[in-house]
Amino acid sequence: MKIMHHLTRVEFENNSDKVVVLPIGSTEQHGPHLPLGVDSYIAEDIAKHLAKVTDIIIAPTITYGYKSKPLSGGGPLFKGTIDLNGETLIHLVTDILCKFARDGFNKIFIENAHFENQAFIEEAMDLATAQFPKLKVVQSNWWDVLDQKTVDEIFKDVPFPGWALEHAAITETSLMMYLEPDLVRTELMPTEVKAQALPYSVYPARHDLVPDCGVLASPVGSTKEKGKLIVDKAIEGFIKIFKKEFN
Amino acid sequence: MKIMHHLTRVEFENNSDKVVVLPIGSTEQHGPHLPLGVDSYIAEDIAKHLAKVTDIIIAPTITYGYKSKPLSGGGPLFKGTIDLNGETLIHLVTDILCKFARDGFNKIFIENAHFENQAFIEEAMDLATAQFPKLKVVQSNWWDVLDQKTVDEIFKDVPFPGWALEHAAITETSLMMYLEPDLVRTELMPTEVKAQALPYSVYPARHDLVPDCGVLASPVGSTKEKGKLIVDKAIEGFIKIFKKEFN
Amino acid sequence: MKIMHHLTRVEFENNSDKVVVLPIGSTEQHGPHLPLGVDSYIAEDIAKHLAKVTDIIIAPTITYGYKSKPLSGGGPLFKGTIDLNGETLIHLVTDILCKFARDGFNKIFIENAHFENQAFIEEAMDLATAQFPKLKVVQSNWWDVLDQKTVDEIFKDVPFPGWALEHAAITETSLMMYLEPDLVRTELMPTEVKAQALPYSVYPARHDLVPDCGVLASPVGSTKEKGKLIVDKAIEGFIKIFKKEFN
Amino acid sequence: MKIMHHLTRVEFENNSDKVVVLPIGSTEQHGPHLPLGVDSYIAEDIAKHLAKVTDIIIAPTITYGYKSKPLSGGGPLFKGTIDLNGETLIHLVTDILCKFARDGFNKIFIENAHFENQAFIEEAMDLATAQFPKLKVVQSNWWDVLDQKTVDEIFKDVPFPGWALEHAAITETSLMMYLEPDLVRTELMPTEVKAQALPYSVYPARHDLVPDCGVLASPVGSTKEKGKLIVDKAIEGFIKIFKKEFN
Amino acid sequence: MKIMHHLTRVEFENNSDKVVVLPIGSTEQHGPHLPLGVDSYIAEDIAKHLAKVTDIIIAPTITYGYKSKPLSGGGPLFKGTIDLNGETLIHLVTDILCKFARDGFNKIFIENAHFENQAFIEEAMDLATAQFPKLKVVQSNWWDVLDQKTVDEIFKDVPFPGWALEHAAITETSLMMYLEPDLVRTELMPTEVKAQALPYSVYPARHDLVPDCGVLASPVGSTKEKGKLIVDKAIEGFIKIFKKEFN
Amino acid sequence: MKIMHHLTRVEFENNSDKVVVLPIGSTEQHGPHLPLGVDSYIAEDIAKHLAKVTDIIIAPTITYGYKSKPLSGGGPLFKGTIDLNGETLIHLVTDILCKFARDGFNKIFIENAHFENQAFIEEAMDLATAQFPKLKVVQSNWWDVLDQKTVDEIFKDVPFPGWALEHAAITETSLMMYLEPDLVRTELMPTEVKAQALPYSVYPARHDLVPDCGVLASPVGSTKEKGKLIVDKAIEGFIKIFKKEFN
Repeated sequence: MKIMHHLTRVEFENNSDKVVVLPIGSTEQHGPHLPLGVDSYIAEDIAKHLAKVTDIIIAPTITYGYKSKPLSGGGPLFKGTIDLNGETLIHLVTDILCKFARDGFNKIFIENAHFENQAFIEEAMDLATAQFPKLKVVQSNWWDVLDQKTVDEIFKDVPFPGWALEHAAITETSLMMYLEPDLVRTELMPTEVKAQALPYSVYPARHDLVPDCGVLASPVGSTKEKGKLIVDKAIEGFIKIFKKEFN
Repeated sequence: MKIMHHLTRVEFENNSDKVVVLPIGSTEQHGPHLPLGVDSYIAEDIAKHLAKVTDIIIAPTITYGYKSKPLSGGGPLFKGTIDLNGETLIHLVTDILCKFARDGFNKIFIENAHFENQAFIEEAMDLATAQFPKLKVVQSNWWDVLDQKTVDEIFKDVPFPGWALEHAAITETSLMMYLEPDLVRTELMPTEVKAQALPYSVYPARHDLVPDCGVLASPVGSTKEKGKLIVDKAIEGFIKIFKKEFN
Repeated sequence: MKIMHHLTRVEFENNSDKVVVLPIGSTEQHGPHLPLGVDSYIAEDIAKHLAKVTDIIIAPTITYGYKSKPLSGGGPLFKGTIDLNGETLIHLVTDILCKFARDGFNKIFIENAHFENQAFIEEAMDLATAQFPKLKVVQSNWWDVLDQKTVDEIFKDVPFPGWALEHAAITETSLMMYLEPDLVRTELMPTEVKAQALPYSVYPARHDLVPDCGVLASPVGSTKEKGKLIVDKAIEGFIKIFKKEFN
Repeated sequence: MKIMHHLTRVEFENNSDKVVVLPIGSTEQHGPHLPLGVDSYIAEDIAKHLAKVTDIIIAPTITYGYKSKPLSGGGPLFKGTIDLNGETLIHLVTDILCKFARDGFNKIFIENAHFENQAFIEEAMDLATAQFPKLKVVQSNWWDVLDQKTVDEIFKDVPFPGWALEHAAITETSLMMYLEPDLVRTELMPTEVKAQALPYSVYPARHDLVPDCGVLASPVGSTKEKGKLIVDKAIEGFIKIFKKEFN
Repeated sequence: MKIMHHLTRVEFENNSDKVVVLPIGSTEQHGPHLPLGVDSYIAEDIAKHLAKVTDIIIAPTITYGYKSKPLSGGGPLFKGTIDLNGETLIHLVTDILCKFARDGFNKIFIENAHFENQAFIEEAMDLATAQFPKLKVVQSNWWDVLDQKTVDEIFKDVPFPGWALEHAAITETSLMMYLEPDLVRTELMPTEVKAQALPYSVYPARHDLVPDCGVLASPVGSTKEKGKLIVDKAIEGFIKIFKKEFN
Repeated sequence: MKIMHHLTRVEFENNSDKVVVLPIGSTEQHGPHLPLGVDSYIAEDIAKHLAKVTDIIIAPTITYGYKSKPLSGGGPLFKGTIDLNGETLIHLVTDILCKFARDGFNKIFIENAHFENQAFIEEAMDLATAQFPKLKVVQSNWWDVLDQKTVDEIFKDVPFPGWALEHAAITETSLMMYLEPDLVRTELMPTEVKAQALPYSVYPARHDLVPDCGVLASPVGSTKEKGKLIVDKAIEGFIKIFKKEFN
């Protein structure tokens, strides 16, 4: 497995035709039962599973992401969420993309696991490719590549609350059970959660909009098997994208 | 109707307890049958309809928005899309919000009609409210406040392609038929459109991802009545938000 | 008349050899008798008159400008002045100019109606043309193109206070009487105004430097005819510039 | 004379009630007969003359200014003009003002000798005083404080071309003859100069708009005495401003 | 051991009186025998050793650092060095520090393992503490806390080339032998290296200034024991700093 | 001697093959016996001595530098230190370098006399040379080019405290005695100074880390002769660099 930080310069150089996978996560509260590193672990671990089936280079994970929002992550209302201003993330990702392009690595796949990052990552992709016309950057994430059948399977017992509220809920908890089981405090999973998606956003953030537990939908029903299913299906989806865009 | 640019300074000052509605649109290609100003007209015209039923101040519309994306607007592949870098939009909206707050106007409703603007608007909301703790800013748009029944009504004859592909399609065309009928070239509506949403984004933009007509779903079936329905329901939704957040 | 926001993408594309006129105004207090939108209305309305005599494309007006200054606009001392930081305006105009250039529109005329904007607009012109060598951008305004005879005619009855103090005074009031008569509160025109230009600037702004009414010279003597004269002469001036620079 | 760079820390500390004069010039071509440092020398030398009659602290001169413009300085068309982007000058001046304020020096007089600097200096003044409410900053220059009688005296033999064209012309040449006589190449003064002010600006800069000599009005008629007159009158003007604003 | 990404929000909250250690490394070529992640591994692994003897929270490592320089890291001349612009690093670290401060974590120790980061980290420390007066941030690294005796011990057999040239040389190789033995390609260590420190810097970077192997001094003589000695002494040094600054 | 601000545009143009020396200093407290301009005077005066032996152009000195740090300059704890944010200095130097390159001056030597400037200057060098590939910029300072023999000679009577603590101490005091003798208050030299270098940095700055006098090592033992020795040796070093890099 070609983890970039394991490779010497020479080993790296010899792989400039490979796809570089750049995992991007966050440092964000994930309720009482999941650790602050959930998004970063998911991003990085899925990349490692992907590396078992296709020949990629895994770049170091970006572990600080854009600001968590109340109704997709609990936002700044809870401690432990250490996040970046929008401009900072734009510049961080732009610099990294440009440096890969300067070194002749022109196929980059950004695997994002923190929803709030997306618009700022895409701005960076636009700015970097404007500077390096040969550079091609694709961005995706594990939830967008799941097909309906998979979603139905995961939510066969409980209603699907919508992706926005799937924060520290069934999908992320299942993923962590499969990927980082030692970091899940199963006994602390909140059982009743009544967050409600809003058709608007409001600043400053307010406590009455988010459940006290910081979870947006109940994780009850999470299993290791569901986690494995998501990872397998995400990898299938990513491989399809690679075939279409990088081969 | 209190259109801010019509008011004198004195008239404006006397309304500092009112909600300021800030419409944000774009300058973006909308296919062969709709004009470049669609998002700006929709944002501003709905604000004017809203002003008929509630006492608000309408701030000048921001008519240049964030970069159009291929699969939600055609992106930079078509001429006529004059859009802003992410940082520019963040600063533009932040400055405006801060100045309203400085003048004692602490209830601001951003009515956005260009999807790609949202993350950058919210970053501005966060930055401005951090500086002005008394300031409260709410952001919404016409599509997020529609209830399922309304969506079903609009798409009773054709399948709903998803909001991302609703670009220059039935909802926007219907809105323009109702709000700005003189600007719709009905005879030029593309009849067959085969855009497909992708579970990823890719830069630089590519022509094969977007239909040649620049429309992402067929506008056939658009009517003035559907436009009116959307406006009426959007206003209902906005009024509900106002009650909850500003009263 | 080719108002860009009325044009479809295709209509726009077919006019890439035309001059794009970009009106820039402000949202700024203009005394008790004129509305906050004066500079934006003047900029946009003169562009429309210009479009009757020459084949141009009118881009959407920028309606938020650089900070009003006490002795040319009343500055931040009065409510209703919603203005931008210098850097924000530089980036806003730069982005817009660059996008027109990317689309092959290389003749741009910025018609500015808010004096304080000028230096920041010119910085944007410099930055954009450095990136797009084929791009040519001209900037002017209605007051700089008036000949001495016209100025004498307008001020035949009252002394000319200098352009800096012509804020919400005879020229702007006359222009609004001609261009937007419904927005002029003639009965509220201040009759005695004693602002005095200073040979220096001072920050923070202070109330004792500006008349309480927010007007810097008396508008008494304003007429619709003077407004028409200014518009006609401004257009004559602009046409001369177009001939010299764009043909 | 309290030249800041001559003072020790202790001497400086003891003068926090004094006005700090910050001279700002440029590095800009000034025709064949004047050196590149004209604006910086004039700014600094007048400050030194001022220090003879009032108790001020002279801060180090800023010797790189905002971009020279073709019709007020020859612009980028001539070599030797080393100038700054607008944002750079804004930040440079803001940082300096804020540090003086942090050290308790709250009376700052910016003496500017390069016209193009003014808008960016004033933006810095606004930003710095917003951060330090006790800070008061005044900005002026030698030409704005001259009374009509003085201007008439200087131009008794030749017509006054307007301040914009007074670049490397009679006033600056006379000032240098008085302040830095060794740096004036009298024998190289251009005799016939036919620059013409334009009622617009155009980018990119073009050679046909500016005389080949880089001078915008003939310096013939310059004398040391006129230079002394300008300095004396400027100092009178500055003293008046100090009395009004700082005492 | 309190690794922040392992902690739940609640566990994290309960430790706001602890010192947060923020390791900062880089992604930088380290010759033919060491991997690209050397600086990041050293920073993070020493933090983990430190956590065994004192009760700290380890924040996620920043794995992309400031630009490598030719004579302290090989610079941009070799592939695999993915680094950030100065402003990006300043903002990245500032944002992170400010968010910890917002959450009430006011004792932060930045453990830097990439020399070139230092000035930009310190700028961030200055900017963040200016915003959060209760925040205290200390920055150090493993080489500055070593005493002379330790340095002598490490270089008892070979001359000390100076810290600047200790890139991928004895100290870093020994550290990696102790901390990450599987990532050292001992058989590829260059034996003869003739880099020479220069009393100046020059841009753009040039190949003739840096040995072809990308190592600046021979790693021959590196041992696991020397690595352990450095770690032990660094931890001793850090503990001393903690006592002085945080207790 | 070619001091740029003394040259006319034409004289400057004719020297585009020469090395431009850009001195960079600071405005920083230097104890009770040295003035605030020490770094700027040293930078500029050494450049003038250098100009006597080699044909260079001396650009205007940058007299405001990066933030003084407690343990290399006393930092913000003392009044009279007027310094710039890191980004401001980066942009200031980048702009200046780019303008020289635009004018065809591609050999620039930055002679820095304020240690804290270095990283930000080098960032500017990197950014400017990336834009202007023909541009070559070298940066050095008087202390890095001194050989060991010279250092030994200067510190033959007192121990060398290390360069970091050589602030307002023997080397700078000796240099000022030689270069600007009128600005040295010999009688105010602190005799006992007990600053201690720390193996870490800490923010915010604290008074207990720096001697009350603001000097970091005793200047007792400073002589004009030592100052001359440093200048002579620095010039020797610079000439060597010029030969290697610019000829």
